Amino acid sequence: MANLDALRHSAAHLLAAAVIKLWPDAKRTIGPPIEDGFYYDFEFSVPITEADLPKIEKAMKEILQTWKKFEKQEVSVQEAKKEFKDNLYKLELIDEFAKEGQSLTVYQSGGYRDLCRGGHVENPSKELQHFKLLKVAGAYWRGSEKNKMLTRIYGTAFPTKEELQEYLTNIEEAKKRDHRILGKQLDLFSFNEVSPGSVFFHPKGAIIYNELMAFLRKEYKKRGYQEVITPTIYDKSLWETSGHWEHYKENMFVLKMDGKDASLKPMNCPSHILLYKTSLKSYKNLPLRIADFAPLHRNELRGVLGGLTRVRRFSQDDAHIFVTEEQLEQELNNVIDFVKYVYSDVFKFEYSVNLSTKPEKAMGDPDLWKKAEKVLAEVLEKKKIPFKINPGDGAFYGPKIDIQLKDALKRNHQVATIQLDFQTPSRFEATYEGKDGKKHTPIMIHRAILGSLERFIGILIEHFEGKFPTWLAPVQVVIMTIADRHSAFAKKIAEEWNEEGLRVEVDDRAESIGKKVRDNQMLKINYLVTIGDKEMESGNLAIRTRDNKVQTMNKAEFLNQIQKEIKEKAC
Amino acid sequence: MANLDALRHSAAHLLAAAVIKLWPDAKRTIGPPIEDGFYYDFEFSVPITEADLPKIEKAMKEILQTWKKFEKQEVSVQEAKKEFKDNLYKLELIDEFAKEGQSLTVYQSGGYRDLCRGGHVENPSKELQHFKLLKVAGAYWRGSEKNKMLTRIYGTAFPTKEELQEYLTNIEEAKKRDHRILGKQLDLFSFNEVSPGSVFFHPKGAIIYNELMAFLRKEYKKRGYQEVITPTIYDKSLWETSGHWEHYKENMFVLKMDGKDASLKPMNCPSHILLYKTSLKSYKNLPLRIADFAPLHRNELRGVLGGLTRVRRFSQDDAHIFVTEEQLEQELNNVIDFVKYVYSDVFKFEYSVNLSTKPEKAMGDPDLWKKAEKVLAEVLEKKKIPFKINPGDGAFYGPKIDIQLKDALKRNHQVATIQLDFQTPSRFEATYEGKDGKKHTPIMIHRAILGSLERFIGILIEHFEGKFPTWLAPVQVVIMTIADRHSAFAKKIAEEWNEEGLRVEVDDRAESIGKKVRDNQMLKINYLVTIGDKEMESGNLAIRTRDNKVQTMNKAEFLNQIQKEIKEKAC
Repeated sequence: MANLDALRHSAAHLLAAAVIKLWPDAKRTIGPPIEDGFYYDFEFSVPITEADLPKIEKAMKEILQTWKKFEKQEVSVQEAKKEFKDNLYKLELIDEFAKEGQSLTVYQSGGYRDLCRGGHVENPSKELQHFKLLKVAGAYWRGSEKNKMLTRIYGTAFPTKEELQEYLTNIEEAKKRDHRILGKQLDLFSFNEVSPGSVFFHPKGAIIYNELMAFLRKEYKKRGYQEVITPTIYDKSLWETSGHWEHYKENMFVLKMDGKDASLKPMNCPSHILLYKTSLKSYKNLPLRIADFAPLHRNELRGVLGGLTRVRRFSQDDAHIFVTEEQLEQELNNVIDFVKYVYSDVFKFEYSVNLSTKPEKAMGDPDLWKKAEKVLAEVLEKKKIPFKINPGDGAFYGPKIDIQLKDALKRNHQVATIQLDFQTPSRFEATYEGKDGKKHTPIMIHRAILGSLERFIGILIEHFEGKFPTWLAPVQVVIMTIADRHSAFAKKIAEEWNEEGLRVEVDDRAESIGKKVRDNQMLKINYLVTIGDKEMESGNLAIRTRDNKVQTMNKAEFLNQIQKEIKEKAC
Repeated sequence: MANLDALRHSAAHLLAAAVIKLWPDAKRTIGPPIEDGFYYDFEFSVPITEADLPKIEKAMKEILQTWKKFEKQEVSVQEAKKEFKDNLYKLELIDEFAKEGQSLTVYQSGGYRDLCRGGHVENPSKELQHFKLLKVAGAYWRGSEKNKMLTRIYGTAFPTKEELQEYLTNIEEAKKRDHRILGKQLDLFSFNEVSPGSVFFHPKGAIIYNELMAFLRKEYKKRGYQEVITPTIYDKSLWETSGHWEHYKENMFVLKMDGKDASLKPMNCPSHILLYKTSLKSYKNLPLRIADFAPLHRNELRGVLGGLTRVRRFSQDDAHIFVTEEQLEQELNNVIDFVKYVYSDVFKFEYSVNLSTKPEKAMGDPDLWKKAEKVLAEVLEKKKIPFKINPGDGAFYGPKIDIQLKDALKRNHQVATIQLDFQTPSRFEATYEGKDGKKHTPIMIHRAILGSLERFIGILIEHFEGKFPTWLAPVQVVIMTIADRHSAFAKKIAEEWNEEGLRVEVDDRAESIGKKVRDNQMLKINYLVTIGDKEMESGNLAIRTRDNKVQTMNKAEFLNQIQKEIKEKAC
């Protein structure tokens, strides 16, 4: 990764050199490498657009010829301030570095010089050839909306032409698969300005939503989870006890209830603690696994809302598990098995695992932290699950395991989380009677498998390109008629299959069969069945699959096959 | 009913006579007959309690000996004011009646006189014998919290001892069946002061909730309804268009979203209109049946909240159906069939039907109103469903059919509603293209079958006395072990049956089988299965039903029987 960062950081210099050549009065600010490329932020006196990018790329290529190497030069604060005297941004950075006692360096290649800490390629004119500018966006100086809005130019660079090409192809593919576009095209959901960030799931989207919930409910029953239904609004006093009023208030929708401050719940944890406390508990009642699909509300800034990915209202497949210390390891095993079953066995996703450990500002007994981290690591090791440690990245109440899936375009998405919490149960004075007859505080595991259902559906839409596996597909079969006289027969079959639990529609529009096939293929229906005279006579059906193969089989055979496919949740 | 009202009104006089005899400084106000009896409101100088009721009843019986008849006497305003000069409440009433131009009458029986419009029994000492005082409550003078709090004494009276006794028995039965008590005893739900009026459904309550939703979803699929999932918060502008901001604001929870006024939705109608408008519609898309279980919030006064009956957060099995005028009759037929199926065929309830017609303050074309009322009446007549007309009791946007069920204690509960709405679609400018190629406004049917699921569950708990039919029961079977050595066998059967979709628990506590039977009968489990040596050897099971009959059958027979019972939703 270090080499890729050097490559991209060097490309950012090249971009700035080209911009300054084309717009000499533009002010440079910073230009770091990022996960998929690099950017550079500028203050332009006249706004530029993406139409300007080819011109900049051309200038970059010309300049690149002259760049044989990056030369490092140490400079004093005074020298630096003199050199960048016309650029308030660089002057601000120089002051800051000076205050931190850092030595200042300038890197030069060709005729271009920039204030920079280094990290460049050896031979730019050779190594820097495979770059591409991608887009222009607004970005506040230093990320604060109190500062001036700058123009950010994004680009990427790779060591080889092939790698660059693969990346650009994936970007194009991702655009086609954009869940906002497919969501509209497949009539799955919409948004309305009367409720920004809250999804309206149309009937077809609601089917996917409900199928995911039904799938989880079945697993919950197998795995000893108990579902509850909980309120939306809670008095401020609850959030004071949980700490949310102090730490999370700006993300909550606040309102008045009975004349007092209250809020819509952003998380389920405190409501589940209240349920835990509705009756006395003994170790025999544990593990207690409380699951909840309650809608949660978080007051995200309007500017960051986007499709199903960042919303204000969502439901999680959320559960809180209360355990004794002795039960902790076994229960973590259970949750990890659950994750594996859902991601690997059912959805056939690759996924990676991170173990996030004690952060600096952690609460609670350090020995318990060590024990908990050890338990998490051991559980993963015993299961031979490779994992990366993210030191200091745990929650303030305990360490956690985070799961990232890799989608069909090799993009990572953070999904499941398994968090250990030693703090909340004691804040709420939740207890159980142990075998010793004494009161103990249970440990709480916060866990979500799919995470936000809204977001997960967004990931699925893009991963499957809208071609949902049959068990999730809103319409699994469309029966198309060749002529009007086939309509009654088609409807009868549809009715039969719908009664068997399938989701079947009839397309008996007065259109050609060719148009019907094309229209329904646009909707990515799993199976298209054509009914004409031949089919009505023979009783055999011509079944067209999504990859456009046609098979002939009788009704019972097809029903049998599709039901098996649904039952097995084939992907 | 008139005779019963006269009887009870006379009993209210008798109550007042006794109170004045016992507490001469108590101030009388009013004492009307009500649905199940009568009350009289007094101002006492020293508070009384229900412990005083026997004493008052005793005095009533003594006074009754002297009451041979009610004598009517017309009085002038001046005479009346003189007679009641020490009673500000009566003076206020006298002024009011005088202003309305009513003639004033005083009725006398024995030595007791009261300002009264009449309506009494002929022979009180004979007819008034079967009365009972029931409870004491606070009530504001004229129902306004700005006025003084009075003491209301409730009682009832019947023509015969038998009728009185039946009524009192039913009250006792109702107390035992109170869903708040059974809800706690059966661990179905609870409330918490951090969210007054919002139910916490415990796992067992959530099972009932989810089973009801699953039942409706199955029916929705059969009947062509499409479920959607919609936001909770909406900008004020939506409520201004719908009219709620003007007419319903005090019942809404208001909050800020993006710095502007917004509210939690109290009803689904406007969100469904928005969904209707997400794409162009033609007559071929209608009827469009949009169903939604979204949680709704209504800011009821804290004082009126009670159990599951009056809540602030609830979900309805709500749907809005958009139809053309030509489709209206057929669609109403469909909805009425749906109501009949649910109430009569599934739950075996008796129910009655009211048709509520155009109110004084109605909106819209009077001809359409007439047509709509006629359609509703004709649909009911054709189906030979008897109905009562409630003149002027329709919604402001259209007439409606209301359904009242009668529960096991013969109490009526308003449940389903079918409302015709000609206004909302045009307020939101919803249209469809007709066969004529022109734009038309659809008619909207608002309908709920169960109504509030929370409230319906409350009714079911009391109706079934917590003895839910097997398909709804949170725990259908408990397998009880005689000794520890039977535990593994019991768990194996439970696992098998749970996999078959049943809800089965094992009771392998170290308790006697007698105690296990008693404990599980308290929980009103449908089937109790005992496992001992004999059962493990023979493979036959001893099954105890809820009415304490024991049957012997093998596993497969029992599974078969209970699955059939569940499938048929036997009540």
